[in-house]
Amino acid sequence: MRKNTFIIKQRAFLKLYMLHEAEKGRLYGLQILENLQNYFKDLGYKPTKSEVYKSLHELLKDGYVTREPIIKEGAEMQTLYIYRIGDREKVKAYKDTVKADLDRSIALLQRALKDNYSQKRG
Amino acid sequence: MRKNTFIIKQRAFLKLYMLHEAEKGRLYGLQILENLQNYFKDLGYKPTKSEVYKSLHELLKDGYVTREPIIKEGAEMQTLYIYRIGDREKVKAYKDTVKADLDRSIALLQRALKDNYSQKRG
Repeated sequence: MRKNTFIIKQRAFLKLYMLHEAEKGRLYGLQILENLQNYFKDLGYKPTKSEVYKSLHELLKDGYVTREPIIKEGAEMQTLYIYRIGDREKVKAYKDTVKADLDRSIALLQRALKDNYSQKRG
Repeated sequence: MRKNTFIIKQRAFLKLYMLHEAEKGRLYGLQILENLQNYFKDLGYKPTKSEVYKSLHELLKDGYVTREPIIKEGAEMQTLYIYRIGDREKVKAYKDTVKADLDRSIALLQRALKDNYSQKRG
């Protein structure tokens, strides 16, 4: 976590969900974008393809996940990838860092609600 | 509020605090940076000079605040500005929008905590 930043970065938030799916053995490159877009629809958040794929690429590059090709049957040959958890110790440390940043971010936003909408600040 | 964005923008968060100070009649251009930096120090957030002054400039440009010069006494002539609330109806509408975005942002972050750290999601 960088020092003195505002709130949690979108990239960290997306990675967290991807690691969760990888832990469950169901992180597929082609599906994760649509899954995340559907999952956050009710909260008005639609992650872009670019953000999702960059996050996935960083997870791979940093060793948090590994990937294996899966040959999909059908008229056209198409290579799918399944992503699996890589270095578990490293993943755990990363998740701990992200948790601290989530807690900090929620505290900042809740302070703003209290200060600006409860009519109590001096 | 733009559609499908992640969480609240730093600029909106800063403007909210500046409007609050302007409403109290104590928003001074030279002091607000230091005040905000001190106020969020405990939560690891140190807004930069650039972000703070851009936010202030946008508030002025959009008519949310107006400014008046104050001549500061001292050895050197220096012009200070005090910023006052401008169009109150517009400010109220803006604050309502920001409140909705704060609520939405907190809900997103809390969902991530629940999904990824409570060991309950499928």
